[in-house]
Amino acid sequence: MKQITSIQNPFIKSLVLLQEKAKSRKQSGTFLIEGKREISLALKGGYEITTLLFVPEICSESETRELTTTAECIEINAAVYQKLAYRDTTEGILAIAKTKSLTLKDLKLSDTPLILVAEAPEKPGNIGALLRTADAAHLDAVIIANPKSDCYNPNVVRSSVGCLFTNQIATGTTTEIIAYLKERNINFYCATLQNANSYHTQDYTTPTALVVGTEATGLTQEWRDAATQNIIIPMQGEIDSMNVSVAAAILIFEAKRQRGF
Amino acid sequence: MKQITSIQNPFIKSLVLLQEKAKSRKQSGTFLIEGKREISLALKGGYEITTLLFVPEICSESETRELTTTAECIEINAAVYQKLAYRDTTEGILAIAKTKSLTLKDLKLSDTPLILVAEAPEKPGNIGALLRTADAAHLDAVIIANPKSDCYNPNVVRSSVGCLFTNQIATGTTTEIIAYLKERNINFYCATLQNANSYHTQDYTTPTALVVGTEATGLTQEWRDAATQNIIIPMQGEIDSMNVSVAAAILIFEAKRQRGF
Repeated sequence: MKQITSIQNPFIKSLVLLQEKAKSRKQSGTFLIEGKREISLALKGGYEITTLLFVPEICSESETRELTTTAECIEINAAVYQKLAYRDTTEGILAIAKTKSLTLKDLKLSDTPLILVAEAPEKPGNIGALLRTADAAHLDAVIIANPKSDCYNPNVVRSSVGCLFTNQIATGTTTEIIAYLKERNINFYCATLQNANSYHTQDYTTPTALVVGTEATGLTQEWRDAATQNIIIPMQGEIDSMNVSVAAAILIFEAKRQRGF
Repeated sequence: MKQITSIQNPFIKSLVLLQEKAKSRKQSGTFLIEGKREISLALKGGYEITTLLFVPEICSESETRELTTTAECIEINAAVYQKLAYRDTTEGILAIAKTKSLTLKDLKLSDTPLILVAEAPEKPGNIGALLRTADAAHLDAVIIANPKSDCYNPNVVRSSVGCLFTNQIATGTTTEIIAYLKERNINFYCATLQNANSYHTQDYTTPTALVVGTEATGLTQEWRDAATQNIIIPMQGEIDSMNVSVAAAILIFEAKRQRGF
């Protein structure tokens, strides 16, 4: 079995680029996953793992091979692991996985879908938080409009605690997504800060998409003009500021409540 | 007016300790606030500001003096500011404020209070996120049980985006808080992961406290045994993991919905 013990190794350097550069992920069509649980969830979610890198003192060869029989296994040392790992906690195992295309046309929806759309989330951590809530609510899909960072950004992978692999995800432009929803007669409710009906007065029991924008600037005019209905979460505090993943969770779980979970 | 231009200045060193050490904050009864908006909110929330430190190139002396007439003003340079500031963004103004005691007996509640209790939140950032949601919902109070970090931790101050000053806050032991709620006939609903009724089947229109635990271990037995009712947010995903501030927001806004906002 191949062993790599130098952080100067060209292959290891190429993996560092995968962590650091969206361009490297795009060109190679691969990304890194840390942690046994996350790797298992990726395999379950249909991701192809080409290579497993493990530190035998932390994660044994047999534990590693149990995950999948088709990946190449490479032994690395702690120094190499630390160079590659994004997280503090030491899992001792990393996988190279192939990215998916995440296109709208590949989404498989139920008869009465409940979808979350997030337009241009500012921080990768926010995408991770949204994916956690989407998993808990077992949404049909999460759609990212005009994404600012790719879904295989290491901070998305990490902050989603594996929910990147348990959700159906698609990306697209706002125009493409609006067309997609309209073609399928999916009502879409756009969270705004003004000129909108209170979110809890709307009926989310029909095919529904809930659409949230950025914390700083909210949704673009294109969404607000096209919306089935603009909605607002009434805020009564001193500061009209709500975390985007908190706002999305309030909307999603109101829809779930109406649907009787 | 006093000017300080050296990060070796003993007074500046004592302020660095305020940012870094809970013990220093406790011993001195003071903490630091960054940013004009946050300082304004603290003043509005009844906090006493003893000193303002400003970088004249970023925040002028007149802007600084407009905030309060009773505080001493000290001119500092960018190097000193950077040494003291916790945030990346440069506001150019810092305040030394007196801490409050945050005791249960000082809370002023409405006739039908809605309260959030969080037991031992792991991360200061989680406290900040809870305070943001509490502000948006205009809760009567936020009570922290068995706190692991003090509320004047710079990360709490920062992540609350000023909501530390707009909420009524108290801390206490779990035993003290349970006694406080029982004495006042406030029903309390404890969020758990099992053996509980679904949160949306309960009535939160009477005096209510919603109680959440840590993400890792949930609420202690003491809370679960004493609860008016244990409640659960039904989760249907692969991963039973929800951010504590997301879970709290779902519960709080269900109560708000029942109360007609």
